[in-house]
Amino acid sequence: MPKNVVISIDAMGGDHAPAIVIAGVQLLAKNITDGSLRFILHGDAGLIEPLLADNPDAARLSELRHTDTWVAMTDKPSQAIRRARGSSMWNAIDAVKSGEANACVSAGNTGALMVLSKVLLHMAPNAHRPVIAASWPTLRGSSVVLDVGANIECAASQLVEFAIMGEAFFTALHDQPSPSIGLLNVGTEDLKGNDVVRQADALIRSADMGLNYKGFIEGDGISFGAVDVVVTDGFTGNVALKTAEGTAKLTAEFLRQCMKKSPLTMLGALLAKSGFRELKSRLDPRKFNGGVFLGLGGVVVKSHGGTDGYGFSNALKVALNMSRSDYAARIAGNLEKLAKVLEKPEKAQAKKEGVSV
Amino acid sequence: MPKNVVISIDAMGGDHAPAIVIAGVQLLAKNITDGSLRFILHGDAGLIEPLLADNPDAARLSELRHTDTWVAMTDKPSQAIRRARGSSMWNAIDAVKSGEANACVSAGNTGALMVLSKVLLHMAPNAHRPVIAASWPTLRGSSVVLDVGANIECAASQLVEFAIMGEAFFTALHDQPSPSIGLLNVGTEDLKGNDVVRQADALIRSADMGLNYKGFIEGDGISFGAVDVVVTDGFTGNVALKTAEGTAKLTAEFLRQCMKKSPLTMLGALLAKSGFRELKSRLDPRKFNGGVFLGLGGVVVKSHGGTDGYGFSNALKVALNMSRSDYAARIAGNLEKLAKVLEKPEKAQAKKEGVSV
Repeated sequence: MPKNVVISIDAMGGDHAPAIVIAGVQLLAKNITDGSLRFILHGDAGLIEPLLADNPDAARLSELRHTDTWVAMTDKPSQAIRRARGSSMWNAIDAVKSGEANACVSAGNTGALMVLSKVLLHMAPNAHRPVIAASWPTLRGSSVVLDVGANIECAASQLVEFAIMGEAFFTALHDQPSPSIGLLNVGTEDLKGNDVVRQADALIRSADMGLNYKGFIEGDGISFGAVDVVVTDGFTGNVALKTAEGTAKLTAEFLRQCMKKSPLTMLGALLAKSGFRELKSRLDPRKFNGGVFLGLGGVVVKSHGGTDGYGFSNALKVALNMSRSDYAARIAGNLEKLAKVLEKPEKAQAKKEGVSV
Repeated sequence: MPKNVVISIDAMGGDHAPAIVIAGVQLLAKNITDGSLRFILHGDAGLIEPLLADNPDAARLSELRHTDTWVAMTDKPSQAIRRARGSSMWNAIDAVKSGEANACVSAGNTGALMVLSKVLLHMAPNAHRPVIAASWPTLRGSSVVLDVGANIECAASQLVEFAIMGEAFFTALHDQPSPSIGLLNVGTEDLKGNDVVRQADALIRSADMGLNYKGFIEGDGISFGAVDVVVTDGFTGNVALKTAEGTAKLTAEFLRQCMKKSPLTMLGALLAKSGFRELKSRLDPRKFNGGVFLGLGGVVVKSHGGTDGYGFSNALKVALNMSRSDYAARIAGNLEKLAKVLEKPEKAQAKKEGVSV
C-alpha cells in the first residue's frame, strides 16, 4: 500500500499560472479516490478559488492557503530572495521543511526556486550542491540526465555525487533496482576528456558503492539509451539538453514541410495521421516535464515554466514517485561511503592516484 | 574566374578506403572539364589503379603517387607519428606544405591527421591551436560549429580565435560576407556561464575586428540557425554535435516505427514516400561531411571515416571552396588584431577589466 502523500504547490509559478497548475492538479486528482494523495496550494485565493470551482476533483483534494505575493518569472534570484518570505514559492517550500508536505512543485522562476530551496531545506547530509536532473526520451524508454544547469563548473567528487543521486532518482521514477550509469565524455576510451571526468571515473570506481557504473558514454549515447543515468556538469548537460530539443524541433519542422511537398505527400500524411500523432506523443516534452533539484533536504520538483496542465500533472507525478520512494535513504548510504573515501585514509590513496577531491 | 585548384588526397584513409575515395573523386570530377581542378592521390597503387580504371573522370584529373604504408584507423596518434613518414596521410599533407596542392583531404584517423598536420604545416601566424569546424543543418540552411573536439579545455582568447576562423570558414563555404557569430552558453544574459565564456564575450567585443558578433546563444539556437557561426570549446561542441546526431537518429527511428503502426499508416507512408525521401536528404549527414582543421598553415579537411563516395565528394567540395576563398588572408588580419589587443597597451586594459588572456 503506498503511503499517503502531500504535495505542496506554488500555484502562482509559471507563465500561465495559476490556471495550468489547477488543471494539472485536476488531471491527477480525478483518479485518486482513496485519500492517498493531497495537495496544499499556495497563492492568490481570489485567482485560485474560481479555478477550483471549475475543477471539483482538484478542489476535493486541495487545501488553499492564500498568499499576497509571489516571485515573478523575471526576478533575479537576488531580488527574489529579498522579497520572497511569505510568497507562494516560499510557503510551498516551507511546507516541506515543516514536514507538512512530502514534496514541493513549482513552475516558477528556476533561479529563485533553487536559492529558496537551498535556504529553507539546506543540503542532504554529505551532499554539497543542488543538481538539476531531467528525464530524456531514448530508444529504450527514458533516461535521467544530470546536471542540466545548476552547476556550471564541477569537481570530480561532485560528479560522483550526481551519479549517486541520479541513480536513486531513476529508481524512484521507474522502480528499477540497479540502473546503469555513464559519464558523458568526448570518447569512450580511458584517456579521453578533461581531468575532471577522468578523475570522476577513477573515483566512482574506487568508492565501493555498488553502482552499476558503465564508464564513459558519448553524446549520441544519450538518445540511444546507452545508460539509464547520464552524469555530466551543468554547462555540458544544459547545452546537450537544449541542443537535443532544438534538433527534435528542427526535424519536426522539416517533416512538416516535406509532408506539404505535393498533393500526394499531403494525402499520405493524412492517411498516416495516427502514426504522426504517436510520434508527437513519444517526443512530447510535456511527458518528460519535471526536473528535480537533487541533493536538498527535501524534494523540490521544477516544472517547465511554459507548460500546460498536462505537463504540470507530469511534474506532480514525479513529486509523487519521489515521495513514495526510498530516495533519501538510498542516497544517504552512498553519499556517506563517498564522504569516507574522500576523507578517511583512502583519501591519501586517492590523492596518490591523482584524484583531485 | 576561379583559380585552378589541386587537392591532395589520402586515398587510404577511411573505413572503406580506397573505394569510397575514388568514388568521391569521380562524382566531383565528372562535372569538371576545364582543368580548374586536379587531384593527387596518395596510396597503394595496386589497390587504386583498378578503381581508377572503372572511374574514368577520376582517372582523367588525378595523379597517383604510390605509398607502401598508411596510418591505421585504430592507431593512436603517438603510434601514428612514429611510423607516419612516407605514409599516404603524411604525403597527402606534405603536398600542401610543398605548395603543390592547395588543400588536403583525408577520411583517416582523426588524431593522427591532427598531429601530422600540425607537425608538417605548423600553425597559421597568430593562431595557437588547431580547431575542428563542422557544418550543421539548421532551419535557415546550415551553420558552422567549432570546436567539435580538438581542444577539450579552452582559454577565452582561444574561443575568440575560433570566432575569427569560423567566420572566415563560413564565408569560404557560403560566399557570404558578414556571417553572424554566437558564443554557446547556458543562457543569453551577460551573467550566465563560466568565466571563460564571459571573458571571451568581453574580449570579442573589445577587439575591434569588424565581426558580426551577436553574443551568447543557447543549445537550441544551433538547430534554429540563431547564428551562422557557433563558437564553443571542444568538449561542449563534441557533446552537442553527437547529441544532435543521436537525437536525429532517435526521431528517425521513432518515425519509422510509427509509420509501421497499422496498414493505414503504412499506406500513408508509401504515398508520402517522396516527402520522406526529401526529409532524409535534408538531414543527410553526408551532405554536411567535411570537418576542417582551422588555424594551420594550410587547408586540411577531415572526412567522416565511415562515409561513402557521396559523402567524400562533399568533403572534397569543402576543400575546393576553402582553396578558392581568401580564407587565409581573412583570418590573418583579425588574428593580428587580436594578438595586438592581447599584447599591446590594450592588454593592461583587458586585464583591468578582468579578461584573462
